[in-house]
Amino acid sequence: MALPHGASAALAGELVDAGIRVIDLGPDFRLKDARVFERWYEVEHARQDLLPLAVYGLPELYRDRIRDARLVANPGCYPTSAALALAPLVRNGMADLDFLVLDSKSGLSGAGRKTSLFSHFCEADGSVAAYAVAGQHRHTPELEQTLSDLAGRPVRVTFTPHLVPMKRGILTTAYTRTPIQDLSPLYQDFYRDEPFVQVRSEALPATGHVTGSNRCQVAPRFDPRTGRATVVSVIDNLVKGAAGQAIQNLNLMFGLDETAGLDLVPVCP
Amino acid sequence: MALPHGASAALAGELVDAGIRVIDLGPDFRLKDARVFERWYEVEHARQDLLPLAVYGLPELYRDRIRDARLVANPGCYPTSAALALAPLVRNGMADLDFLVLDSKSGLSGAGRKTSLFSHFCEADGSVAAYAVAGQHRHTPELEQTLSDLAGRPVRVTFTPHLVPMKRGILTTAYTRTPIQDLSPLYQDFYRDEPFVQVRSEALPATGHVTGSNRCQVAPRFDPRTGRATVVSVIDNLVKGAAGQAIQNLNLMFGLDETAGLDLVPVCP
Amino acid sequence: MALPHGASAALAGELVDAGIRVIDLGPDFRLKDARVFERWYEVEHARQDLLPLAVYGLPELYRDRIRDARLVANPGCYPTSAALALAPLVRNGMADLDFLVLDSKSGLSGAGRKTSLFSHFCEADGSVAAYAVAGQHRHTPELEQTLSDLAGRPVRVTFTPHLVPMKRGILTTAYTRTPIQDLSPLYQDFYRDEPFVQVRSEALPATGHVTGSNRCQVAPRFDPRTGRATVVSVIDNLVKGAAGQAIQNLNLMFGLDETAGLDLVPVCP
Amino acid sequence: MALPHGASAALAGELVDAGIRVIDLGPDFRLKDARVFERWYEVEHARQDLLPLAVYGLPELYRDRIRDARLVANPGCYPTSAALALAPLVRNGMADLDFLVLDSKSGLSGAGRKTSLFSHFCEADGSVAAYAVAGQHRHTPELEQTLSDLAGRPVRVTFTPHLVPMKRGILTTAYTRTPIQDLSPLYQDFYRDEPFVQVRSEALPATGHVTGSNRCQVAPRFDPRTGRATVVSVIDNLVKGAAGQAIQNLNLMFGLDETAGLDLVPVCP
Repeated sequence: MALPHGASAALAGELVDAGIRVIDLGPDFRLKDARVFERWYEVEHARQDLLPLAVYGLPELYRDRIRDARLVANPGCYPTSAALALAPLVRNGMADLDFLVLDSKSGLSGAGRKTSLFSHFCEADGSVAAYAVAGQHRHTPELEQTLSDLAGRPVRVTFTPHLVPMKRGILTTAYTRTPIQDLSPLYQDFYRDEPFVQVRSEALPATGHVTGSNRCQVAPRFDPRTGRATVVSVIDNLVKGAAGQAIQNLNLMFGLDETAGLDLVPVCP
Repeated sequence: MALPHGASAALAGELVDAGIRVIDLGPDFRLKDARVFERWYEVEHARQDLLPLAVYGLPELYRDRIRDARLVANPGCYPTSAALALAPLVRNGMADLDFLVLDSKSGLSGAGRKTSLFSHFCEADGSVAAYAVAGQHRHTPELEQTLSDLAGRPVRVTFTPHLVPMKRGILTTAYTRTPIQDLSPLYQDFYRDEPFVQVRSEALPATGHVTGSNRCQVAPRFDPRTGRATVVSVIDNLVKGAAGQAIQNLNLMFGLDETAGLDLVPVCP
Repeated sequence: MALPHGASAALAGELVDAGIRVIDLGPDFRLKDARVFERWYEVEHARQDLLPLAVYGLPELYRDRIRDARLVANPGCYPTSAALALAPLVRNGMADLDFLVLDSKSGLSGAGRKTSLFSHFCEADGSVAAYAVAGQHRHTPELEQTLSDLAGRPVRVTFTPHLVPMKRGILTTAYTRTPIQDLSPLYQDFYRDEPFVQVRSEALPATGHVTGSNRCQVAPRFDPRTGRATVVSVIDNLVKGAAGQAIQNLNLMFGLDETAGLDLVPVCP
Repeated sequence: MALPHGASAALAGELVDAGIRVIDLGPDFRLKDARVFERWYEVEHARQDLLPLAVYGLPELYRDRIRDARLVANPGCYPTSAALALAPLVRNGMADLDFLVLDSKSGLSGAGRKTSLFSHFCEADGSVAAYAVAGQHRHTPELEQTLSDLAGRPVRVTFTPHLVPMKRGILTTAYTRTPIQDLSPLYQDFYRDEPFVQVRSEALPATGHVTGSNRCQVAPRFDPRTGRATVVSVIDNLVKGAAGQAIQNLNLMFGLDETAGLDLVPVCP
């Protein structure tokens, strides 16, 4: 059942009140600051009282808190791909926080199952479009919140989502300045024990490499001409970017093997 | 006839020697500095003597020189879309030249007609891929040359090309910092008399809006939260990005109406 | 302006009453028998009085009548492709009229611009579907009417439409039994003077060969093992299957060059 | 490792000689008559001595023989979809054997991983093509053999393969004349205990409904106007049409649960 933004707060709240642990796939409990939520989503937040309880459900960053959480806010698809692309650099203080650009390319399922002219096959096929450019997309404050938390200080980013003629997948190309050249070891180390994140040092990832799986592939590259890093990350927005990550969180919350039900091999071709 | 890079220098040179005016669709005469060409294309330049004659065939920037040129270097597809996206800001000194990021999304025809596994339908469909990231793509020095010329000083950019599952079209998302907020008037003014460039102030362009035509649509947007501009441009890489632009140059060289043979309506859907 | 089926009868009727010549793109005047129309379209026919005036606007079969027509019923897309595939065999008495099977594959634009779940990109992409099988599609009586007229006696066909993940184009594969083996000369002769029909004797056509043009390509093949013919025809449903054919009819009605405004080169790729 | 047609005969033969049970995915042991094989595949058959041992690996028709087979010839993708569409009618004597038409639509993976111009994304996307029409395709004798076996007498069919711009899936539309009107019970009964065949009596199947799974969906429909049946079947050519069916055969040969390793949910969207 798809609810309007802001609707799950009340619903999830009732469950939490009744002592039931909740994983909310909506945005209502992702943003820690209710005023920020209300400004971006233009609805009142029905259960601000629960915000201190809510844990942001990105296991690679908040695994320990998720285990004991009563209320998990499952991340948005774009913020998942963006956070995993930049986390190793930002947490290690190796990213220029005044130079963060995130350019994401998503398949049409990211726009939901609702019919509209722009998701009509004849509009979408054979065409790439940008939308919500220049800080208009509601995932912007969510990914800024995560990166700010990693950086230890408020961070602003430029984020542009695009629609690409394919059904599934998000590829995010992240740009920053960095003082270190050899990025692979940093990323390999950061994601060493992660069951779903693969660092690709040789070939570059494509969204087709993770279709149907809960995997995220990340490829950091440094350009000595400019002193800048370009990091490419790919996920399947319907799995690691949504329901798969929810199952990953559920596994953590119930003490199950984190990969239970998620050993999905990517569909190829 | 597709020639290897570096091959058209000799061929075009013979024609120029014979007094024939040439429009070269290859890269050989695009870069003013033969050493830069040789470093990026890894072949020797056979006719460096002709480089001073060569005019870069982007009519919106070099129209007057093209009219009298004996040798026109038709621009690459990515540099066309990138230069038209940033030219108004850069020429007017309104772009932070230390913050130039160009993220381009191209259809498969940009990779040529040659068969290879990555252009196989089953590899390309349903997947987005980045390639030649972090300053590896040969169009990088070409677009830096144009932007440097516009800026009046050497400029470095970060450029990432991507392949998107569609046949034609390039969408470039350009990022910079800028002191001015109201970008549309600047762009409207810069492209006021251009027959093939449309500035879109309301809706955002998609590559499907220009398919099969020689048009370029440009949409500049400012984000007051970050003080940065995001500019989206779209072209059909096979028309404005290649053969159509060559005809536009030919029209200029022969004193014809610049739009002769090019009043192509975009194919929709 | 898209009108519901049955609505253009009244509208076109008013114009015809006023002495204005009309080309109707709707189905209202395609079927000669109002009862057949009403049975298949489930609406009342508002202007049965005009049916004797109406000429079926397939120039390759009814060119002379179209020239003087006051009211032209522009054919449906499937019936255009099917009639042109079988006309040479049927008119020459070379088709087994008890063995006529028409299997058509259409792009999504054939289903119109209206949004619905089945035309959502995520439903349509990567999937082929049959619909209205076993005599359910409303174009069935229309193509039976044309083939009956060509045969000189009532004819029944089996027709199956399919939706294919592409924007434009119809490929019809037509099957019949035939006593003659060498089909190309028959087809070459039948379409000798047609500006928009090409008979392909060597390579087989694909819809991509006619995209964006008013062309129809037809390839008849005989199988000596079975004594049956397979004829493949392709059109662009939005041009020869709709608006292009309307212009062709208009040219005929006004004594213009039949190809005026229609010398469109197929878009490739 | 992809071998040329005819190559697996020798290879598989060596294994069979050594007492190893073999499932051959190539065509070498599918046709019972070596002369038919040699005529259609234009290579000599290296191990005709093994043909009497070989069992055609379509479990829905030959389950008992597969269990004990030393050599299983895994069926072709088109013949799998065609045989399952027509088997209930043909085995029950309810199909007019002089009126069998099979029109198949396949994704590009059916043409293999080999690169060629026609599988280049820019050739294949946005276009439907017929190929090997009028009895040219090598799967013709294979599906005639199966239908002849079901019918109890030699049968000829007209078969046309088509390439559709999608990666996976085959939809076959089968046509015949039949004396019975109520086809669903016949099909429901025939496939009652089959784990991988679903008879669809209400909605029509699309290839997207079985993508990534070993399922076959079959929808028989009768047209009282013509006395003919149209049967639509869909499979994923890479699973039920190839490797999945091989695993199904392996499960049978080793006395495992027939669905072991094959409880794959279709990927949607």
